[in-house]
Amino acid sequence: MPTLVLLRHGESEWNALNLFTGWVDVDLTDKGRAEAVRGGELMKSQGVLPDVLYTSLLRRAITTANLALDAADRHWIPVVRDWRLNERHYGALQGLDKAETKAKYGEEQFMAWRRSYDTPPPPIEPGSQFSQDADPRYADIGGGPLTECLADVVARFVPYFTSTIAPDLQAGKTVLVAAHGNSLRALVKYLDGMSDDDVVGLNIPTGIPLVYELDDALAPTVPGGTYLDPDAAAAGAAAVAAQGAK
Amino acid sequence: MPTLVLLRHGESEWNALNLFTGWVDVDLTDKGRAEAVRGGELMKSQGVLPDVLYTSLLRRAITTANLALDAADRHWIPVVRDWRLNERHYGALQGLDKAETKAKYGEEQFMAWRRSYDTPPPPIEPGSQFSQDADPRYADIGGGPLTECLADVVARFVPYFTSTIAPDLQAGKTVLVAAHGNSLRALVKYLDGMSDDDVVGLNIPTGIPLVYELDDALAPTVPGGTYLDPDAAAAGAAAVAAQGAK
Repeated sequence: MPTLVLLRHGESEWNALNLFTGWVDVDLTDKGRAEAVRGGELMKSQGVLPDVLYTSLLRRAITTANLALDAADRHWIPVVRDWRLNERHYGALQGLDKAETKAKYGEEQFMAWRRSYDTPPPPIEPGSQFSQDADPRYADIGGGPLTECLADVVARFVPYFTSTIAPDLQAGKTVLVAAHGNSLRALVKYLDGMSDDDVVGLNIPTGIPLVYELDDALAPTVPGGTYLDPDAAAAGAAAVAAQGAK
Repeated sequence: MPTLVLLRHGESEWNALNLFTGWVDVDLTDKGRAEAVRGGELMKSQGVLPDVLYTSLLRRAITTANLALDAADRHWIPVVRDWRLNERHYGALQGLDKAETKAKYGEEQFMAWRRSYDTPPPPIEPGSQFSQDADPRYADIGGGPLTECLADVVARFVPYFTSTIAPDLQAGKTVLVAAHGNSLRALVKYLDGMSDDDVVGLNIPTGIPLVYELDDALAPTVPGGTYLDPDAAAAGAAAVAAQGAK
């Protein structure tokens, strides 16, 4: 049976500092590394054994996958990396403090940037501190986007999923996707057929594998999938929802 | 210019214990992890920036590559893994103490198993503690070899190099091969056109990138390549040569 395992990276340095991150390539914290190892231990103990790994091009997802697969004794599986799994680009908000941004622009604008489906933040200034326009990994896509809303992430990631990841699933493989809060929200929206409105309320916790068993048409047999640690996932999702409130 | 970077994994748990390892999937020691990070720092500081990574299916090479590429800010490059880069299979010697083996069988037999070009150790017993016959990563090659001499490693790795790695080099890429003492000896023998006798005296130190700049025919422009830290490489090669003497 095709099995899709989604893993959101553990706590990053900028999660811990409450900064907008987007495409800035920050590292995991020690807590984030521990989350990744535990995610791998959950996979191993419950017999969820990936045959192939897909990651973004960002260190926090790559390291999460490396640590989780090592803990699951699946470090040796094939790896595919693609920018289409990257976090949503947060535009000019990258590097800003979430609480300060909320205080400055107000709750309504803040929530629109964070959670509306189709309102991108202001674009990042080319050449500014956190722009990626000199980054060699994005040279072949002209440096990549300057800002993105969730609809933009759906538009780049879902076609990649259907063209590249889906064939591995159709071959009966267990596929691990190690990625980010918003790229995984985009994928879950597609898998579960969520509306643009409903995805606004979707929160995916860090470090806890979310398993979708799929039918032959790659439709989820259990809508919303199954977390390998449901209690921790519920607490984690609540914590994500509360982000920016502090 | 095509550039090939060879990186032998850092110290493993069984290196530290002076045991024959072969295809047994042991982890790095903390010293081995530090060697890997330093190897990546050497690449970064000297501007040797891999475009693609090839690894074996063994944890000690995979983790070495992960740590080195992270330190070099090249964690995001494409990855290819293949069993043909694995360490030489040490047959029935896997898990045995090197010094005890030498005392039991004598210096001549010991050196023949360790360093002769075409004398494999006795085959491993199927189903024994360190055999890989139930290992899923080798299921599609019937479990893999039961023992190997260096000639066997040349016979499996060099055709893979010429068919799969060489095209990346011919495209002008910088290719990192993260592998093992004997798989890298097999490759260096091929690259430098060494005789079966001469390769016996070749020792490759751990954790120090060995860089081959290649011409259009993929012949080394500097025979033997260039270590990124030549002094440490010379000391490391001497330490490898002395192994088993303790």
